[in-house]
Amino acid sequence: MAHQTTTRVGEPFDRTLMEQLMKRRMFYTPSFEIYGGVKGLYDYGPAGCALQANIVDLWRKHFILEEDMLEVDCTSLTPHEVLKTSGHVDKFADWMCKDPKTGDFFRADHLVEGALEARLKGDKEARGQKVEEKEEDPKKKKKKGPKSTAVKLEDTVVQEYEEVLAKIDNYSGDELALLIQKYGIKNPETGGDLEPPTSFNLMFQTTIGPGSALPGYLRPETAQGQFLNFAKLLEFNQQSMPFASASIGKSFRNEISPRSGLLRVREFLMAEIEHFVDPQGGKKHPRFDDVKHIELALLNRDTQLEGKTTVDRISIGKAVETKLVDNETLGYFLARIHLFLNKIGVDPNKVRFRQHMANEMAHYAADCWDAELLTSYGWIECVGCADRSAYDLSVHMKKTSQPLMVRAIRKEPLKVEEWQIDIDKKKFGPLFKKDAKTVETAIEQLSQDLREKLNLDLQKEGKIEIDVPGVGGGKVELQKGVVEIERRTRVENTREYIPNVIEPSFGIGRILYSLIEHCFWTRKGDEARGVLSFPPPIAPTKVLLVPLSSSPYFHPHLQSLSRKLRTLAISCRVDDSSASIGKRYARNDELGTPLGITVDFQTVKDSTVTLRDRDSTSQVRSSEDEILKAIKGLVEGVETWDDVRNRLPAFEGQEVD
Amino acid sequence: MAHQTTTRVGEPFDRTLMEQLMKRRMFYTPSFEIYGGVKGLYDYGPAGCALQANIVDLWRKHFILEEDMLEVDCTSLTPHEVLKTSGHVDKFADWMCKDPKTGDFFRADHLVEGALEARLKGDKEARGQKVEEKEEDPKKKKKKGPKSTAVKLEDTVVQEYEEVLAKIDNYSGDELALLIQKYGIKNPETGGDLEPPTSFNLMFQTTIGPGSALPGYLRPETAQGQFLNFAKLLEFNQQSMPFASASIGKSFRNEISPRSGLLRVREFLMAEIEHFVDPQGGKKHPRFDDVKHIELALLNRDTQLEGKTTVDRISIGKAVETKLVDNETLGYFLARIHLFLNKIGVDPNKVRFRQHMANEMAHYAADCWDAELLTSYGWIECVGCADRSAYDLSVHMKKTSQPLMVRAIRKEPLKVEEWQIDIDKKKFGPLFKKDAKTVETAIEQLSQDLREKLNLDLQKEGKIEIDVPGVGGGKVELQKGVVEIERRTRVENTREYIPNVIEPSFGIGRILYSLIEHCFWTRKGDEARGVLSFPPPIAPTKVLLVPLSSSPYFHPHLQSLSRKLRTLAISCRVDDSSASIGKRYARNDELGTPLGITVDFQTVKDSTVTLRDRDSTSQVRSSEDEILKAIKGLVEGVETWDDVRNRLPAFEGQEVD
Repeated sequence: MAHQTTTRVGEPFDRTLMEQLMKRRMFYTPSFEIYGGVKGLYDYGPAGCALQANIVDLWRKHFILEEDMLEVDCTSLTPHEVLKTSGHVDKFADWMCKDPKTGDFFRADHLVEGALEARLKGDKEARGQKVEEKEEDPKKKKKKGPKSTAVKLEDTVVQEYEEVLAKIDNYSGDELALLIQKYGIKNPETGGDLEPPTSFNLMFQTTIGPGSALPGYLRPETAQGQFLNFAKLLEFNQQSMPFASASIGKSFRNEISPRSGLLRVREFLMAEIEHFVDPQGGKKHPRFDDVKHIELALLNRDTQLEGKTTVDRISIGKAVETKLVDNETLGYFLARIHLFLNKIGVDPNKVRFRQHMANEMAHYAADCWDAELLTSYGWIECVGCADRSAYDLSVHMKKTSQPLMVRAIRKEPLKVEEWQIDIDKKKFGPLFKKDAKTVETAIEQLSQDLREKLNLDLQKEGKIEIDVPGVGGGKVELQKGVVEIERRTRVENTREYIPNVIEPSFGIGRILYSLIEHCFWTRKGDEARGVLSFPPPIAPTKVLLVPLSSSPYFHPHLQSLSRKLRTLAISCRVDDSSASIGKRYARNDELGTPLGITVDFQTVKDSTVTLRDRDSTSQVRSSEDEILKAIKGLVEGVETWDDVRNRLPAFEGQEVD
Repeated sequence: MAHQTTTRVGEPFDRTLMEQLMKRRMFYTPSFEIYGGVKGLYDYGPAGCALQANIVDLWRKHFILEEDMLEVDCTSLTPHEVLKTSGHVDKFADWMCKDPKTGDFFRADHLVEGALEARLKGDKEARGQKVEEKEEDPKKKKKKGPKSTAVKLEDTVVQEYEEVLAKIDNYSGDELALLIQKYGIKNPETGGDLEPPTSFNLMFQTTIGPGSALPGYLRPETAQGQFLNFAKLLEFNQQSMPFASASIGKSFRNEISPRSGLLRVREFLMAEIEHFVDPQGGKKHPRFDDVKHIELALLNRDTQLEGKTTVDRISIGKAVETKLVDNETLGYFLARIHLFLNKIGVDPNKVRFRQHMANEMAHYAADCWDAELLTSYGWIECVGCADRSAYDLSVHMKKTSQPLMVRAIRKEPLKVEEWQIDIDKKKFGPLFKKDAKTVETAIEQLSQDLREKLNLDLQKEGKIEIDVPGVGGGKVELQKGVVEIERRTRVENTREYIPNVIEPSFGIGRILYSLIEHCFWTRKGDEARGVLSFPPPIAPTKVLLVPLSSSPYFHPHLQSLSRKLRTLAISCRVDDSSASIGKRYARNDELGTPLGITVDFQTVKDSTVTLRDRDSTSQVRSSEDEILKAIKGLVEGVETWDDVRNRLPAFEGQEVD
C-alpha cells in the first residue's frame, strides 16, 4: 500500500478489504472478465451504477440547475480536423518504449523515473538512511517498478538524478531517449533492451463512414463540443453574458498500460463546465459574495517550489483579494467545487486544492487549481479548474472563420480620435477599374502613423503614393480630390471580444472511487464485513425493508411501505431472504443503505415499525407515518439521526445474527 | 414529404416548420457544424438535452425502479472476441456499392429497391394508374431516389420486380450483384457505373492499448455487457429468478450514408432491458394480471403476409391467450412499453406494435414485436421487444466455458430410473494403473442403451468388453467383480438451465424525435411560430417566470418564486428580457414550457400571480401559495388544467404582443 490513510473511526484503511467488498457487492467489476478482461475498462454493477447516478444527479442540481447553466450533449465521435485544431492530435500523447522481445510497452518517463528512484533508494540504503515510501501517483503508475539494491552512488550522481527527476514531466522524446541510453535503463521486469521512445497518441482512432475519407477519434474530453456550439448557445441565452455551458458524458483515453483500478481507465464519465466570461473588468462573478467566506485548503505554487505540501486554510475571499487565486470567477468555482465535494460526503480532512506549477499549465492558461482527494494511492486529482483564457474559441474561430465572439454594447460609447481617409468613388472607380477594390483595401489597411505622414504629403505635394502589391508597379499614386485625409472622432457603441473560459472539469469515476475509500470502515469485532457510510442523498438505496421472515403474512405491510416510499421518491429494496435479520442488515451496510425498517409481528398488530441507523446500528420504533416522516427528513438532509433519536422512542430489541 | 400526418389540432403536419423550430430553439443541431458537419452526428442543445434527460428519468422510474431491475453501466469499447462470439463481426454488416468515379457509396439493397420502385412507378404512370406515395422508411433511406419516367413494362417484368422487392431484405451480396447487373442499375445521381457490392461492417473499429494486439469496436448495442455480467448479477440477486438487468448508454453504428435527421444516426442513446426467465413453465410473468386488460394495436404477421396493415385492437391478455403473442413475459413487456409511450405523451393514434415476419427474425428468436410510431417519415421502429431464447448466454458460455446458467431447486425432486455401473476401485486401480482414469471416463460415458446390453453380457459371460481409444488395442475387458451393473433410481433435487432472454430495446433518440413530431402544432393566425405540447413531466422546463418588465422592482418576487419552485424540484426559468410578454410566452411555447407565471404590479401589492396554460393560453389568478399548489398538481399529473380552471378564478387580462 502506497499511502496509509485512516478510516472515519481512526483505524488504518485496508484497501484489500475494501476491494473485496466492491467485488462481493458488485459495485464495479472488470469489463469482459469472463473473456479474461481488458485493462483499464470497468463495468458498474447495480450499486455502483446507482451511486454514480446519484452523484451525477446532485452535480446537475448543484451546478446546472442552481446556476441556470446550458446543458449540451455532444457526440463522442469527433472528426480529425477538430482535434487537430484543438491541439490534441499533436500534443495529446505520451512517449513509450517497446521491448522487441516481449512486445510490452512502457511509458518512457515512467521508465526513467522508476529506474532513477530505485537507484536513489539503493543509495540511501547503502548510506544507512531511512527510506520513506513515496506516495504512489496513479498518473505515473509503473509496471512493477525496478527493485532497489543497496549501492552507494557518487554525490554528484545523486544530485544529477534528483535534477532529472524534478524535470521528469518536461522531457521531449529525444531527451528521454538520451537519458535511457546514458543511464542504461532496461525493461524493469526482464532486464531486456528497449527500443527508443516513440510518441503514442492517447486518442482512440476510428473511421467515420465507409472508405477512409473521414478519420476521427473518440473525444478525450467533452469540452470541444461545447466550444464549437458557442455561437448557438450565446444565441439561446439571448446574447446575455456571462453564461456557462455544461456537459456530462463519456470520454476516452487510450492509456499505454493502465493500473490503479478506477483511477486510471480508458473510458470514463466526465462532467465539464465551460463558463464564458468577458476578459475585461477582472473576471468578476455576480455571486462571489455568496461564497467569499468559505475556507479552502490551498496548496500554492510557491510552497510546492520549496518542496513542501503545507496548505493554507483561508477564505476564498482572502485568496482572491491577495491574488493567490487569479480572479473572482475562478475563486467562485473553487468554492462551489468545495461545497459539492462536501455535499456528496468526502472527508473534509482529505481534500485540498493544489495550484498548478507554471510548467504544468498550458502556455495560454492564466491560473489552474486541482481539487485533490487523499486516498490510499496518495493525493488524486479529481477536479481540475482552469482559466483557459480565450485559447479554445480563438483557435476554432481562426480555423473555421466563424465568429465565436460576443458583441457587447458599451455602457459609455468609446470615442476614438483617428485619421480617416475618404475616397471619392466617382473619380476613384474609373481611375482603377478592375483594381479599384484592391486599391481600396490597401487604403483601408494603412496604419494611423502612416496616415498621419501621408496627410502631410497630401497637403504639401497634392498627392500621395501607397504600396498596392499586384497593381501597377506595386505603387499607386493618388491625387488630392480622389482621396482626402482628415483627423476625426469616431464613436464606437459596441465592443467585440472573444470570451475567456473558466473550466471546472470533474472526473466522476475518480470522485466516486475516492468517496468509497472515504466512506469505508469496519465495525469492531466484525472486521471481515465493511460498512459504507454514504450520506443518504448519495446512497444507492435509501431504505432496506426487512420482514422478520419470508412469510406471506408480512407481504401487505411490505407492499404498502414500498408504495409509500416510492411516492416520496425514496428508493427502497425488500430483503425477504431466509438469512437472519443481522445478516441481511450487514449485507446492506456493505451496500451503504443508510436506513432499515423491520416489519415484525407487532407491525401487523399496531402498524408500528422499527427504524435502524446504519452507522450507529441504534433503532427507534414508532408508527409507520412517524417513521416515514423521519426517513423523509433524513434523506432530504433536514434532520440528523440524533434528532430522530431524541424525538422517537428507542427500540432495544437485539439484531438476531 | 413522404407521409402526410396531421397535428393534434387536425392540421397537416409541416416538417419544415418543425425543423426550423428545432434549429431556432436549439433542440438539436448537426455536430461540428462550424467545421461543415458530419453526417449522422447530432448534438442536443439545452432544450433537447433536458427533454432527453426527462424521458430517461421517466424510463428509469417506469422500468428500473418500478420493477427492481438491476442497472449496469458497461463500457462502449468492446474487444473483438466478444463481438465475434455474439455474431456481430460476421453479420452486423450491409452490402454497399462504390462509384469509382465519384467515390460515393450506396447501400446495395437500397439501390435495387430504388431503381425497381421507380420503374414500377413509371409503368403505373404509363398505364394511367394512380400512383400512391409509398411510406418512406428511414431504415431504407436512399440518396435522392431515381426519378420515375412513364415507361410501360411487360406484365411478366412487373411481376418479377414485385417479387424481388418482396424479398429485398434477404438477398446475399452475390445475389444483389446479379440483380444490379441484370437490371442495369447505375448510380442514381450520375448514371455512372458501380462496382459490385462489398460487405461493410457497421461497427466502428479501433485498437485498445498500444500496438495492434487488441482490436476492438464501439458497441452496436448495450446488450452484450449485460449478458457477460449474468453470473454476477444472478449472485447479486441472491440466486433468485426471474430478474432483469437494464442499461442506459450510448451505442454506435457506422451507417453507410445516414439521412433522416435523428432517425438514423451514427451515435445514439439506447435503453435496454434483458429479462432473464426460466424457459420451462411457459415463461409466465408474476405481474401479468396487472396489465392483461390493456388494449394494444397489434399488426400481426399474417396480416402483413396478406400485404395489409390493419391492426387488431385487443387486450394483451387475449393476445397471449390466443398465442398471437408467444408468452406472458413478452406480452407483459409489450403492455409496459405501451404504458411508457403513453406516459411520455406520444399520440395514442400513432402507435402500433408490428410483429416481425419469420424471415426478419434471427433464427433463434421465438417471437419479436416492434413498437412503431407514426411520423412524417412513415412508421418508425422505436422499441424492439424480442424473445431471444437462450442464444446469447449459450454462445458466450460455449466460448468462455463459464457457467452462465441457473441452478434451481426442484419443487418435486426428479426421479430417474437408470442403469448404473459400479467400479471396485481396489481391483480396478492396480489393473489399469496409469490408464485407470481414461478407462473410468469411458465407462461413465456409456449410454443407457449400451449399459442395458452390457448388463446382459456381464450376467451371461461374466465379463464385458468396451471401447477405450488409446488403451490396450482400443478395447478393454472388464471382469464381473471389477464392475457391477444395476438398474437403480436416482433422485435429482436441482435442475440446471440457461435462462431465456426477453429483450425490450429502446432507441431514445427515435422516441424523442417522434414525440416532438406528435407534440408539434401551430396556432391559428400564428403559423410561423410553433407550439410543443409536451406533457409537464417530460417538458424541458416546467414553469416560465415572466416579470412585467426587467425592473429590479420585481426581483424579490421572482427570486422567492424560483426558490420555492426549486424546493418543489420543479424546474423554472426567468425571462426578464425586454421583449413583450406575448413574445416571451411564444418563445416558451416553442420550448414546450407548459406553465407560465406573470409577476406584475398587483403581485407586489398582494402576492397574487397569474398562471398561464401553454396549450389553451387561458390564465387563472390567485395567491402564490394556491398557484404553487396547482403547479405541483399539474406537474405530478394528479390535476388537469381544467381542474385548475374550475378551482381558481380566471384571469382575463390580454397578453401584450
